[in-house]
Amino acid sequence: MNDRFLRACRRESVDTTPVWFMRQAGRSLPEYRAVRERATLAEITNDPALCAEVTLQPVRRLGVDAAILFADITTPLPGIGVGLEIVDGVGPVIDRPIRSAEDLSRLRAFDAEAAVGPLLEAIRLIRREAEVPLIGFAGAPFTLASYLVEGRSSREAIALKTLLHADPATFEALMAALVDMTVGYLRAQVAAGAQAVQLFDSWVGTLSPFDYRRSVAPHMRRLFAGLADLDVPTIHFGTGSAGLLPAMADAGGDVIGLDWRIGLGDGWAILPGRAVQGNLDPSLLLGPFEAAAEQGRWILDQAAGRPGHIFNLGHGVLPGTDPDDLRRMVELVHETGRRSPERSAASQEPSLLSSPNSRSDSCPTPSC
Amino acid sequence: MNDRFLRACRRESVDTTPVWFMRQAGRSLPEYRAVRERATLAEITNDPALCAEVTLQPVRRLGVDAAILFADITTPLPGIGVGLEIVDGVGPVIDRPIRSAEDLSRLRAFDAEAAVGPLLEAIRLIRREAEVPLIGFAGAPFTLASYLVEGRSSREAIALKTLLHADPATFEALMAALVDMTVGYLRAQVAAGAQAVQLFDSWVGTLSPFDYRRSVAPHMRRLFAGLADLDVPTIHFGTGSAGLLPAMADAGGDVIGLDWRIGLGDGWAILPGRAVQGNLDPSLLLGPFEAAAEQGRWILDQAAGRPGHIFNLGHGVLPGTDPDDLRRMVELVHETGRRSPERSAASQEPSLLSSPNSRSDSCPTPSC
Repeated sequence: MNDRFLRACRRESVDTTPVWFMRQAGRSLPEYRAVRERATLAEITNDPALCAEVTLQPVRRLGVDAAILFADITTPLPGIGVGLEIVDGVGPVIDRPIRSAEDLSRLRAFDAEAAVGPLLEAIRLIRREAEVPLIGFAGAPFTLASYLVEGRSSREAIALKTLLHADPATFEALMAALVDMTVGYLRAQVAAGAQAVQLFDSWVGTLSPFDYRRSVAPHMRRLFAGLADLDVPTIHFGTGSAGLLPAMADAGGDVIGLDWRIGLGDGWAILPGRAVQGNLDPSLLLGPFEAAAEQGRWILDQAAGRPGHIFNLGHGVLPGTDPDDLRRMVELVHETGRRSPERSAASQEPSLLSSPNSRSDSCPTPSC
Repeated sequence: MNDRFLRACRRESVDTTPVWFMRQAGRSLPEYRAVRERATLAEITNDPALCAEVTLQPVRRLGVDAAILFADITTPLPGIGVGLEIVDGVGPVIDRPIRSAEDLSRLRAFDAEAAVGPLLEAIRLIRREAEVPLIGFAGAPFTLASYLVEGRSSREAIALKTLLHADPATFEALMAALVDMTVGYLRAQVAAGAQAVQLFDSWVGTLSPFDYRRSVAPHMRRLFAGLADLDVPTIHFGTGSAGLLPAMADAGGDVIGLDWRIGLGDGWAILPGRAVQGNLDPSLLLGPFEAAAEQGRWILDQAAGRPGHIFNLGHGVLPGTDPDDLRRMVELVHETGRRSPERSAASQEPSLLSSPNSRSDSCPTPSC
């Protein structure tokens, strides 16, 4: 069993840097596109064997150090009574968006086995076969609330933020219901065999630190508290969150995911006591591999000599990515990570503020 | 003449905090919507009297401390040979996107009087009438390049970033041409009477610090150098740029604009020697005024006692905003700013790192 991913989550020493990619199972892989010709996303997550197959495809092809359960962040929502459809090119579309306390009364309690039984069975199948750890995952409540209130994906989350300010009681009740659901969903994933869990807060970057601290962080704290006895690492990831990182870390997560819009060293410097995951710009893998390799090495250089780095992209693999480039990136990470200075124990945490690697946003090359 | 805006740009003492709003001239004002019923955006910028009228509407109604020239960031582009149309609900659409060195050869040199003569005449008209300073503006080259390469507004800028990595020579040549154009455009605005200029880099937040430092910052430095002899304050603003702020400040700007996704105190702490502008979440002005007022006071509190803060939103006024709320926000800023401790001289710069206001993202209220 390759356990370097789990060891890095715990900031233990590793033989080399572990690597996996958000959305590694998906449209960049021809074998995934072949499955999608005969099955919708909902059909995959409702078919344990197919879901296991799709989850394991990137592990076989790319040599990554972790699998992540194949599902959509909206997958558990029908389990609390939300009708939705996943529309190609649009994403999930909610039948009846939630805008009021009355709308909330339609929601029911989440029963994991009833709601996502086939997905839990897929986890058991994956665990029987996988030689790398399996990461469970869920959307974070703010991001799920954004879908529920806006009715579909919305990068600005304006309707949700307006609800937060104009009707805080409804916002609070919605967030509380989503925390309950998510704790149940993730506990069931872990009970079925997931060895770590990642919370995706895709839209959290639309919030000011004021609103995050006051209106979102308390819910995230309750969510992480609801998982604390499970003894699995938790990964807390948001996009566009460079200005929120300390607040997100305060809310919880053994590992903080960084998107590509902050230097890894700069981000890590304001996250004492945490492991970090990230953070290559996914668009680099649409261009020549050497450009991606250069920035991959820059990221690894910022993490060198310090335990607790999991290499990943700063967001999901883009559909046009060549899987051969993903595989080459895995090899690059493993080779570079092996050449790193002897990794120190988790108890030792050098101050990045005084290290030459600390200013990750300082000139990366002699040319600037 | 109310000069508190210009004084704050220079970090001089002021009687109270100056305030203006990005997109203060626009769809939130009924008098603007009335103009738009009879004129397109291009017709407004081509009609000096109408452009001056629209620029001055918010100054009269809201009591802001600065006017900003009404134009679109694509307004100068036809002047270098780019055909475009501004489509309602979509924004600017470029006739023939630029994707290669050959496409670049279609561009011609910028002649400000020929390209934007009516806009320069509007500036002269505004200066005759306005009792507040007039801010000129331009889109920053990376953001303009995003329109030119993607063909329209694109939040991800993936085609442009792919060009940057796959064909750096074309990217460099395009950026260089846009710097030349923008220097000419802004110098003409200042010659006509603009008393400060703001660079809007709306899409710069899609870049990693690595790419920004290596591929964008040198062009921004050349742009600011091209304005250095003009003796007008420069404002450098990007969105989603919390992880890029030191790199953007290194590239230039007397004032750095902050969007709402970083605490103003946290942002200012990593911008020594600069004034800052911002940074209320514009969506707050769609909800009850008290929620906006609370966060407005939180922002002012982080800036209190330090010269060089210009209050603004973290991005443009949203179309559904009630102008009465904007006017009330101006009054709140002026009243709160007047009560601030005596403002120190620009030469004095207390370390925010050691002040209790420095951790702006720490708990904003007793409730969290």
